[in-house]
Amino acid sequence: MDRLHAMTLGDVLREHRRSHPQKVALVCGDARISFPEFDTRVNRLANALTQVGFVGGDRLLWLGQNCHRVLEGLLACAKIGAVFCPVNWRQSPEELAFVLSDLSPKVVIWQNEEIGASVAKARELAKSGAEWWQHDGGDYEERLARASDRDLALDVDPSESVLLMYTAAFSGKPSGALLSHTAVMMQGLVTSKIKDIGPEYTYLNCGPLFHAATFMYTAATFLWAGENVFVRRMDAEQICQLIDREKCNGAFLVGPMLDKIIECNREGRYNLKSLRAPAASDRWNAMITVDQKKAGGYGQTEAGGLLTIASLGCRPSPFSQVRVVNMDGSDLPFGEAGEILAREPLMMNGYHNRPTETTAKKAGDWHHTGDLGRREEDGSLTFIGPMGRLIKSGFENVYPAEVEQCVKRHAAVADCAVLGIPDEKWQESVKAVVVLKPNQSATVDEIIEHCRNLIASYKKPRVVEFVDALPKKSGMTDYEAVHAKFGQPA
Amino acid sequence: MDRLHAMTLGDVLREHRRSHPQKVALVCGDARISFPEFDTRVNRLANALTQVGFVGGDRLLWLGQNCHRVLEGLLACAKIGAVFCPVNWRQSPEELAFVLSDLSPKVVIWQNEEIGASVAKARELAKSGAEWWQHDGGDYEERLARASDRDLALDVDPSESVLLMYTAAFSGKPSGALLSHTAVMMQGLVTSKIKDIGPEYTYLNCGPLFHAATFMYTAATFLWAGENVFVRRMDAEQICQLIDREKCNGAFLVGPMLDKIIECNREGRYNLKSLRAPAASDRWNAMITVDQKKAGGYGQTEAGGLLTIASLGCRPSPFSQVRVVNMDGSDLPFGEAGEILAREPLMMNGYHNRPTETTAKKAGDWHHTGDLGRREEDGSLTFIGPMGRLIKSGFENVYPAEVEQCVKRHAAVADCAVLGIPDEKWQESVKAVVVLKPNQSATVDEIIEHCRNLIASYKKPRVVEFVDALPKKSGMTDYEAVHAKFGQPA
Repeated sequence: MDRLHAMTLGDVLREHRRSHPQKVALVCGDARISFPEFDTRVNRLANALTQVGFVGGDRLLWLGQNCHRVLEGLLACAKIGAVFCPVNWRQSPEELAFVLSDLSPKVVIWQNEEIGASVAKARELAKSGAEWWQHDGGDYEERLARASDRDLALDVDPSESVLLMYTAAFSGKPSGALLSHTAVMMQGLVTSKIKDIGPEYTYLNCGPLFHAATFMYTAATFLWAGENVFVRRMDAEQICQLIDREKCNGAFLVGPMLDKIIECNREGRYNLKSLRAPAASDRWNAMITVDQKKAGGYGQTEAGGLLTIASLGCRPSPFSQVRVVNMDGSDLPFGEAGEILAREPLMMNGYHNRPTETTAKKAGDWHHTGDLGRREEDGSLTFIGPMGRLIKSGFENVYPAEVEQCVKRHAAVADCAVLGIPDEKWQESVKAVVVLKPNQSATVDEIIEHCRNLIASYKKPRVVEFVDALPKKSGMTDYEAVHAKFGQPA
Repeated sequence: MDRLHAMTLGDVLREHRRSHPQKVALVCGDARISFPEFDTRVNRLANALTQVGFVGGDRLLWLGQNCHRVLEGLLACAKIGAVFCPVNWRQSPEELAFVLSDLSPKVVIWQNEEIGASVAKARELAKSGAEWWQHDGGDYEERLARASDRDLALDVDPSESVLLMYTAAFSGKPSGALLSHTAVMMQGLVTSKIKDIGPEYTYLNCGPLFHAATFMYTAATFLWAGENVFVRRMDAEQICQLIDREKCNGAFLVGPMLDKIIECNREGRYNLKSLRAPAASDRWNAMITVDQKKAGGYGQTEAGGLLTIASLGCRPSPFSQVRVVNMDGSDLPFGEAGEILAREPLMMNGYHNRPTETTAKKAGDWHHTGDLGRREEDGSLTFIGPMGRLIKSGFENVYPAEVEQCVKRHAAVADCAVLGIPDEKWQESVKAVVVLKPNQSATVDEIIEHCRNLIASYKKPRVVEFVDALPKKSGMTDYEAVHAKFGQPA
């Protein structure tokens, strides 16, 4: 390892201690922790961990809600060269037991309040041999108090994994994406550039810290020595109090939580003007400072966050490369749909405990997103959907997601599912199952003609069936049921 | 090399070709070059270079004024894994000959207009065996036209050197600092964050492209697919025209050039409001958009640009670590002066052709800046001056630069030089040669007492001599003359 050029998350904290000796780093409940105090607490945790044999490469599982100790755990792992995993505490005991078995952490930091019963059940199911440290009793703090505050000063390579996040399980069991120091830091830096996060920024950690969508802001705020404020879980009253008191500039707030905050602050008890957030209802916009820049983009946990950024016109940051390729791996021209590949310093190192999947994902030294996209003529990237299903029609491959997106652009169409049905001549042919909007009409020929004008002819549906509704599961189209019900030959 | 995570400057250009097919990348004279055209021209140059045996590790010397071809040369080297060096064309033929011998470039791209005679003389002196390609005749363009536009698609490691910049020669001959792809890209990203440079930014390259102070903006603009506009040399009329026509947001403009621009635009012929620049005179401020953020910071070419940033309160970016250490390498407490050390991904790989200096610079895996600094109690870093001279007084080391800075804080002092004079008991003792401001007075005891209150007692001057003026050379204190004139024992 080249130490002269190395910079790890632990080094960032060490530098903050020198550069910001009087600045508040973390606010959580009654705790207000400066950067030197933060660094000292991380050293104590790192020493407490090494005392129980926790070494580089080992995993530390966080089984609790939001707390400043999440960052302490991450940074202690960073200084040891170990891996920190904050896991979704809302999961069932069975799901948590799966994580315990899959991750095989050496130490688990767990929370009793609100989730103690679920944790206990999971622990019993998994028969985990880990050390279990409760963070919301006195246990965690006692261990810190007993440990040395000496900096371990180990050499850690910034390309090593430091953060593990389980990805959403679209099919089968979730997989843990391993992100390096460099990945976390680069994503934080890109996020800070896009969202204007600097030393004066205060971030309210109210969203799920086990999710990249929250964590990239936490990391960006930490990188620039801004203030990270924590609230245990989504609670409108507490969120309002903290935004007002700490003058928070950012927070992960979506959907129903906005309504709860508007309701909570209907009498204007709290000043929320420091918060910069996307526009929503008029009442919301009047309370906060509307951020005019487009939010979000297309990304995945495996890619360390966003691969293309909405405010950059759905293009990558200067630290990501994105290609759209054919089945044979060759680049597709503008306008044609194929798999999105990526290569970047932010990319995961691989999946924990999944050598086969990891190898498959990085075939040809490009990360295979498994997502379908299209490069438009202006260079922007359109994300179409997960590639998942494929229709084999003659010598051509047709992605149902692309055809669905096309059918849905017809003004009369409310919903659509596309599938392959057996065809003697073509092996499979393309069928669209279509739900029309109330009081709207369209014929089979109109739907087919609409598609012929937008996508290659071989992709257009040969069969169209109108139905009142599509089978759904958790709000998503249930393709198993769609195939069973509509998959017969025409 | 880990290709999945690799991102080079060549990869940035490849991605810009995909993401920004319709965007202007370079403007120079009559040329307006889009990103796909830019990439194609770079491919042609890279092929032309490889045809003459130019390979990874070789050096390409740019011996000309500002031009879009500077970026073409850099990017062609980036794709080959070679090193690009833009050199100060204002140097004498003897100085240029030294660079030719020291760098031993395989290819030199040179300019005839304005500097042809000087270049010819240098070429003769150095007896360079390089290929010489003239860029401002038809030669360069003909070579591009004849070469293939195929992307070489070589694997290049981003930690390899791609840019060589000669550092100012404070003593002896200049040395070439080798910067990696990662260093150039990280400095560009940090600069873009600090100066709010993004896809809509247009940068006027009117400053010296052989200097990090200009180049880091050029790189930042390129990274975000902004527009780089080039003007051959500092010319107020052309600068005004280009800022107006291209709506430039940034330009490297200092001192006398501001007055020339104000004079040139006294009748308001040009709209310069797009330009964001630091405040100066009222007339200047009225013409442009004043950038309220503090500009600049402390840095060096070896560190890839800035190590601490004024707008961050003289603290490093999240990608730099800075320490202030004693002679034995141990960290000094707040308030004490010592050598500034640094470690960061932006750091140079070393000096070209200077193995001994390179090894000395990175002793203990930290870069030794050779500069004297002090960490203040608020964590900010004060740059005092080059460490250079040292006074040995008893068992203590005293840095004259620190004592000078202290003496100059006395209200009556206009200028000061501090030196060691022979002392039988202490080996050397500290002497201050002081110039007072007109109509101000101070006694020897007052100066000594003033210092006693600000620095450690052993550092205070034991001898003070008042003079009318200090010996100067090119505006700087001439310490050789100071020692000769004032260096006798007290």
